[in-house]
Amino acid sequence: MSKRVAVILSGCGVQDGSEIYETTLVLLRLDQLGIGYRCFAPDIEQRQTINHLTDEPMPEESRNVLVESARLARGDIASLEELEAEDFDGVVLPGGFGVARNLSDFAEAGSDMTVLPQLRDKIMPFLEAEKPIAMMCIAPVLVPRLLGKAIPVTVGQDAGVAGAISSMGGLHKSCSVEDVVIDREHRVITTPAFMLTERISEAAKGIFKLVDKLSEMMD
Amino acid sequence: MSKRVAVILSGCGVQDGSEIYETTLVLLRLDQLGIGYRCFAPDIEQRQTINHLTDEPMPEESRNVLVESARLARGDIASLEELEAEDFDGVVLPGGFGVARNLSDFAEAGSDMTVLPQLRDKIMPFLEAEKPIAMMCIAPVLVPRLLGKAIPVTVGQDAGVAGAISSMGGLHKSCSVEDVVIDREHRVITTPAFMLTERISEAAKGIFKLVDKLSEMMD
Repeated sequence: MSKRVAVILSGCGVQDGSEIYETTLVLLRLDQLGIGYRCFAPDIEQRQTINHLTDEPMPEESRNVLVESARLARGDIASLEELEAEDFDGVVLPGGFGVARNLSDFAEAGSDMTVLPQLRDKIMPFLEAEKPIAMMCIAPVLVPRLLGKAIPVTVGQDAGVAGAISSMGGLHKSCSVEDVVIDREHRVITTPAFMLTERISEAAKGIFKLVDKLSEMMD
Repeated sequence: MSKRVAVILSGCGVQDGSEIYETTLVLLRLDQLGIGYRCFAPDIEQRQTINHLTDEPMPEESRNVLVESARLARGDIASLEELEAEDFDGVVLPGGFGVARNLSDFAEAGSDMTVLPQLRDKIMPFLEAEKPIAMMCIAPVLVPRLLGKAIPVTVGQDAGVAGAISSMGGLHKSCSVEDVVIDREHRVITTPAFMLTERISEAAKGIFKLVDKLSEMMD
């Protein structure tokens, strides 16, 4: 039977949701490898909506994370509440500042951040069942509070975010954009993606490698 | 000097904007081939905003096509007004129902549709300068009113849309998802993409071929 992966989204757009190219490249590679996937997002209000043309907040807007994530999933998405680890062989979290604004409060609170409790409830069973967990871009900043402290991850070369991971008791490893950091003990795979490049073809190299490693770990 | 392509967006999301995966796959392939690109979108209000979770209209929402398209371009986008064909070697229009809702009124008017005058003003100089024009998914439905009648295009196998192209005096050719239709005289390339599949890896085959042909035609 073919493998299945859950992909957890946090909106639609790099500044206040999931990074669109990262998500698309993950789904492309999964489908190229014949791995099934299902997207999920929390049914909560976005903490902020950002005008991606001006980079300014739009305080008059109120948007829902699940509804906006549905754009990125062509409507084929379910509430994070419905995710059960037993139905899947692995899980992927793309980056984008929705991770720091909707799945956690890292954007405001830095290393004092808290993680959305529902995300923790849904991800921990993957860790406990030794099913691989892949994260990219800014998402690995969640790891110390989400999964535990002694798991090495990467966000590339960003000293500020690496420092925050460190001050939360986590472990950060530098990494180039085409490479991944793997913790085989906890089965956690991370890659810098758009934390380290503006070029989609460069981000694609690391993201394809991340999905390939995820696939190997599910065998 | 490396080639440059203009990519014209119509929002962010298959139901009321540009199809996200199609756009991302175009940009990926252009960047893999070392072709530069710049995204543009009209600075107009969306005719409708669709909730992509429920497929229902959201009549209380008012969103701007350029601002929402900026999500899909990571903020690196300009108003369609600023597009000058002389600065580019070719142009691409991804699909998505933004084409039928924002760049034209095909969604409401069918074969009585009109095309956004600004789009026609900006695309015609590409045709006149014999620079290649690539379109995918539903976008080729614009061709009879946008570029002229005697240009064969494809939207795949959709009888309704093929019929509309035909009743506007255009030419429709059936095509499989991994293939393209090329009119060498007018340098127009089209592929069905998500008009013919739900699988991103299948859409990618036709889209990569379309960009490869565009690249050859720019040599």
